[in-house]
Amino acid sequence: MARIAVTDGMSDEAIEILENAGHEVVLRHYESEEIANGSLLEFDAVVIRSATKLPSEQISSSVSEDGGIRFIGRAGVGVDNIDIAEATKKGITVCNTPGASTRSVVELTIGHLIASTRHIATADRTLRNGKWAKKQLRGSEIGGKRLGLIGFGRIARGVASVASSFGMEVHAFDPFVDEAPEGVQLHDDVDEIFRLCTHISVHCNLNEQTRNLVNSERISMMPGIGLDGIECGNHIVNCARGGVVHESAASMALESGQLTSLALDVFEVEPLAESDLLRHDSFHGSPHIAASTLEAQARIGTEMAGLIIEYFETGSCNNSLN
Amino acid sequence: MARIAVTDGMSDEAIEILENAGHEVVLRHYESEEIANGSLLEFDAVVIRSATKLPSEQISSSVSEDGGIRFIGRAGVGVDNIDIAEATKKGITVCNTPGASTRSVVELTIGHLIASTRHIATADRTLRNGKWAKKQLRGSEIGGKRLGLIGFGRIARGVASVASSFGMEVHAFDPFVDEAPEGVQLHDDVDEIFRLCTHISVHCNLNEQTRNLVNSERISMMPGIGLDGIECGNHIVNCARGGVVHESAASMALESGQLTSLALDVFEVEPLAESDLLRHDSFHGSPHIAASTLEAQARIGTEMAGLIIEYFETGSCNNSLN
Repeated sequence: MARIAVTDGMSDEAIEILENAGHEVVLRHYESEEIANGSLLEFDAVVIRSATKLPSEQISSSVSEDGGIRFIGRAGVGVDNIDIAEATKKGITVCNTPGASTRSVVELTIGHLIASTRHIATADRTLRNGKWAKKQLRGSEIGGKRLGLIGFGRIARGVASVASSFGMEVHAFDPFVDEAPEGVQLHDDVDEIFRLCTHISVHCNLNEQTRNLVNSERISMMPGIGLDGIECGNHIVNCARGGVVHESAASMALESGQLTSLALDVFEVEPLAESDLLRHDSFHGSPHIAASTLEAQARIGTEMAGLIIEYFETGSCNNSLN
Repeated sequence: MARIAVTDGMSDEAIEILENAGHEVVLRHYESEEIANGSLLEFDAVVIRSATKLPSEQISSSVSEDGGIRFIGRAGVGVDNIDIAEATKKGITVCNTPGASTRSVVELTIGHLIASTRHIATADRTLRNGKWAKKQLRGSEIGGKRLGLIGFGRIARGVASVASSFGMEVHAFDPFVDEAPEGVQLHDDVDEIFRLCTHISVHCNLNEQTRNLVNSERISMMPGIGLDGIECGNHIVNCARGGVVHESAASMALESGQLTSLALDVFEVEPLAESDLLRHDSFHGSPHIAASTLEAQARIGTEMAGLIIEYFETGSCNNSLN
């Protein structure tokens, strides 16, 4: 039976599943320095979310000739905080739970998109300030417009399906995808997305190709006039990874009017402290909560518990990342 | 050719259509007292939105033996501000543009629903206040839950269609409707909607049957646990007419926790001034902007212009309300 360190929390139900299977679960957060000093050596597995960082040094400090970590579970999707190549070199299996939060992220993406086009955050703010700003809050519809998706994985597909039901025409760019469901037009050139679409949503990982992908030059390509001929302006949403949208470029585009709205759930630096974005009514944001739902956390926990049990029973797990 | 008073504004395009058809358009707001004193007698038609009120007295003051108003156009949907029975008695045709804002209202309804379940207004407010409230802002999904629609006209049908694409199970109550599209369950008793549904959206007119329909007793029937077994709480949205949701009852239910969120675009008294609702983070609102989009206003104007031209050419119009 395995000793499992859970460093960023896990649902009660998942812990119960693991303990019922005979595993020992230790719930405690470890700082990077502690991990570098070998704190995880006494465990067989570690389950992290985004707060714990496992770059090369922390991974090699967590294994020795006598034992240490054999399994890293990322309860969630993004593995930017894990050096998977180093884990592979050390014989450590890395698993995440990619499907568990899909629905939650899809819903927040659509929520943020409509909150942008209909000024929901500003509407509530002005109402709380005792102003009835009906005349200043004229919005625009998403139906009849082109939605461009940067990245076309699970979440983007979910967004595409709902967006179609609103009457949007969906376009997507993803260099790793060459088939799309009916009604979604794939493009080989990301610039095409910006040239065609008044509404763009980011659904890719952060890497050297995608960092600052949404920059001044590309924002300036956006048409401002919808497929239906309405001057709805240009709208961008990012519920994927901070850093894909170049924030100071986006802030300048909001200032100039080239960008009509921007909604971000993720930021270049989190927690967000000061930001030029906050000066704009046409910006609204949330603190990286796309997967923060009761449902996603429940699914993430039980899915991760299942992966751990599978790994320690069979020595491998079905959807490992390495 | 007709003289047309437009008292609450109209799109430039619509005015151009009317003028090109040879009609004279006078853009000016008239107070109730002016109308009671016969200000509209010199016109053949009047086009209003919600600000101009035409109860019995104002209607009878707008017609005489020599002429006066023969056509009342409501640029929009709700005709609570027009005494249609009195208009009928005086031989005045009343028309509205019911379809023009459907898509806009559907979109805001879904936007408000997700803004509620995902705390979008609070998320933005806390971010602007320099707080990173990620842990306090756990939300819930709408997919897998039951959505109850009070009223099942055009807008509710649009909401039903999109809600289904999110994976919601849709229930509806409407005493005037006895058929629903596949996937929507109609109920004869409005209380059934409250007993079954964790999420409820109002889509009916305000009248003596619907005033305070959403009251303490009915809110207390709501199950709090979703169709999927998740304790998502109870959520209510009203983008239809103020007064259908009893605001002080709803405020008490937010206070007690029986109601998890409330989103209102319409209020008992508009403009909203003071309200207990504003004390709750679990409430958010907007100042009656459901039809305030570029698209809806353009469609309302051109549709109304078409109805007026039809009326003065043929003496009747296709979809009059009397």
